[in-house]
Amino acid sequence: MRAIVVTIGDELLVGDTINTNAAWLGAALSACGIELVRIETVGDDPEAICQALRRARQEASLVLLCGGLGPTHDDRTREALAMCLGRSLQLREDILSQIEAYFRQRQRPMPERNRVQALVPEGFEPLVNTVGTAPGLWMEDAQGVVVALPGVPHELEHLMQNAVLPRLTRRTGRRVVQQRTLITAGIGESALQQQLEGVETLLDENLSLAYLPGPYGVRLRLTARAHNAETAQQRLEQLEAFVRDRIGTALVGTNGDTLEAVVGRLLRAQGKTLAIAESCTGGHIADRITDISGASAYFQGGIVAYSNAVKVTLLGVDPQILAREGAVSEAVAVQMAQGARQYLQADVGLATTGIAGPTGGTAEKPVGTVWIGLADAQNAYARQYYLPADRLRFKQRATAMALDLLRQHLLQAIPAAVV
Amino acid sequence: MRAIVVTIGDELLVGDTINTNAAWLGAALSACGIELVRIETVGDDPEAICQALRRARQEASLVLLCGGLGPTHDDRTREALAMCLGRSLQLREDILSQIEAYFRQRQRPMPERNRVQALVPEGFEPLVNTVGTAPGLWMEDAQGVVVALPGVPHELEHLMQNAVLPRLTRRTGRRVVQQRTLITAGIGESALQQQLEGVETLLDENLSLAYLPGPYGVRLRLTARAHNAETAQQRLEQLEAFVRDRIGTALVGTNGDTLEAVVGRLLRAQGKTLAIAESCTGGHIADRITDISGASAYFQGGIVAYSNAVKVTLLGVDPQILAREGAVSEAVAVQMAQGARQYLQADVGLATTGIAGPTGGTAEKPVGTVWIGLADAQNAYARQYYLPADRLRFKQRATAMALDLLRQHLLQAIPAAVV
Repeated sequence: MRAIVVTIGDELLVGDTINTNAAWLGAALSACGIELVRIETVGDDPEAICQALRRARQEASLVLLCGGLGPTHDDRTREALAMCLGRSLQLREDILSQIEAYFRQRQRPMPERNRVQALVPEGFEPLVNTVGTAPGLWMEDAQGVVVALPGVPHELEHLMQNAVLPRLTRRTGRRVVQQRTLITAGIGESALQQQLEGVETLLDENLSLAYLPGPYGVRLRLTARAHNAETAQQRLEQLEAFVRDRIGTALVGTNGDTLEAVVGRLLRAQGKTLAIAESCTGGHIADRITDISGASAYFQGGIVAYSNAVKVTLLGVDPQILAREGAVSEAVAVQMAQGARQYLQADVGLATTGIAGPTGGTAEKPVGTVWIGLADAQNAYARQYYLPADRLRFKQRATAMALDLLRQHLLQAIPAAVV
Repeated sequence: MRAIVVTIGDELLVGDTINTNAAWLGAALSACGIELVRIETVGDDPEAICQALRRARQEASLVLLCGGLGPTHDDRTREALAMCLGRSLQLREDILSQIEAYFRQRQRPMPERNRVQALVPEGFEPLVNTVGTAPGLWMEDAQGVVVALPGVPHELEHLMQNAVLPRLTRRTGRRVVQQRTLITAGIGESALQQQLEGVETLLDENLSLAYLPGPYGVRLRLTARAHNAETAQQRLEQLEAFVRDRIGTALVGTNGDTLEAVVGRLLRAQGKTLAIAESCTGGHIADRITDISGASAYFQGGIVAYSNAVKVTLLGVDPQILAREGAVSEAVAVQMAQGARQYLQADVGLATTGIAGPTGGTAEKPVGTVWIGLADAQNAYARQYYLPADRLRFKQRATAMALDLLRQHLLQAIPAAVV
């Protein structure tokens, strides 16, 4: 089954909103073996929506429209569907009752404007939305399926998972697509490419490898297509074995794995706790660590030591060393890691101190310089990195390097098989 | 001038990568008064790239392709351009020398594979890329302009700013589009809609208002089109005055403003310093605060008190109150804010304690419950919020509420004119 996604909203065209819905839909369809061949983004304009829908239906049997079902005057998708397919809009009393009930449950009066969300184009089936006020819309005819979904991410995801995907998986079959993503850290795209020299001989039109660079590392996407699941699986495994053999411990994990999740698993497996002292990363490492549900089992906490005074009073950094070596130095990184470990009563302390920029750089310590410190009961050391980038990207890259240093440190402490 | 953006990459279709480039390009074009009418995303497939290019050229005089210019075997844009426009690919020795120089500067050998990046379709002008190895490509003919740019975000942005936008602004004229975004906090989309009741009477096809909900608040996008800048500006100001009058202090700022930037300006203007104690937000507030360059002028630092032990030892929370009231309570939120203020020697302390989920909720304190505490020399208080959402969204929403509480607190301390 071939699909085309049409995302709708002026905010997407003028760059006010990043189109996370498109990525979420792509991943969800791909996981169901539905091939997404194109994504189109158009504005809140019934003409443009209609043209996109017509174009899409000629090429794909599934068209998913996303956005423009809200209650406000710039939500035009209902109207566009009716116009484009020559259907009338009908006020569905059952949907109106559901919307009224949604507001009643939250003890708020229903704004008059929300009535338009009960309008359904003739021949469309409304998909009940229990987490918001915009119902989804589903229509099947000889040409295929047209689905319209709200653009609010959690409403979209809820309707996809509970109404749309179950209907679609009943319809698909035949061609199998299997994918696997290998997550790497601490190695650039070109270096990876060099390490994987010769991989091309394994690839053909049914087996592909894509390099996906990101601020936290390069991901490798392996895709196999075949007429049955066994063949696809087999080819995927052969390619994965080649890659694993070549890149060694630069491999962090697979699919949805992240550095923070892998570090969390290693800490759990070793029964160790972690504390963090952050200067230049400003809380970004702690933020990532606590994105993982259950982090409280191994994460004691962190200190964002942005001022030098805090480095001294809360982390016990020696003020003389701070004055002599400067805050961005090996000695201070080591003392911060030791201080985090000691004052937050953890087994391992991890610390960052660097120059995020855009100001504060010098010839000797340019913007992008960072020292990452690590301390446990046996060792305390720091490594220097140079990560020139804008401020936000620097924080992300320094966070990835810090988490990877911790990962490599923990890996040395246990047999590889436990990972 | 009408533009269509074609973003290229299998990783975009299978949802491995969120298309931030499309948003960045949309904002950049919009700021130059170029109307982006559609964004298409296709895979690394020369056929699909060619079809998208042909379709786009029929509707717009500027087509911007983005992605697929890298050195690896899945980068097919050069080949697609040559095939689609009937041009041959020529190896440009000058570009090859630049790529070789790029690697030499970094003291790394040039991988053989990077040679393909010196291939240029006949009639295209290469745009020198000083921050990466993929040159951009520019072509003008009677139908308009075709530009191809690398998909690595900082390379794309560098080439747009230094080569593409200067050329484009020389070509545009006539129709003026002006936009302004009003950033709000602490108020939902429906409530905003109610407060703005009657705004429709001001709007027409040349003046529009869009609601853009996001995890940190709803943004309002105002757009005016006119034949001259004065008229567009005048209409925009009239609409903005209406909105400002209705929503009062829920208005945080305009355009690229963020809660953390506005809070930073208020702290600077009042000569105050800030310290943060985070439990459920896990460092996300500190991370946002330190995204602002120059935050060290007012941000002392923060303590991520994930374990109860850290709340007691580093923030001075009374262990008896902690045991009696629980960590997620008014008393603990107040003591955390006071502790942050005291131990980090700041004028204002801000604290969060809540249940991010998905586990840990009870009937009395369900997932989504959060207490936000605030302390300064005169006051110490906490407010309760209920923000049901998944873990990451909860952290974002709680962070927005905390920063907004701080903003409202600071606003009361100084005359409104200073803001």
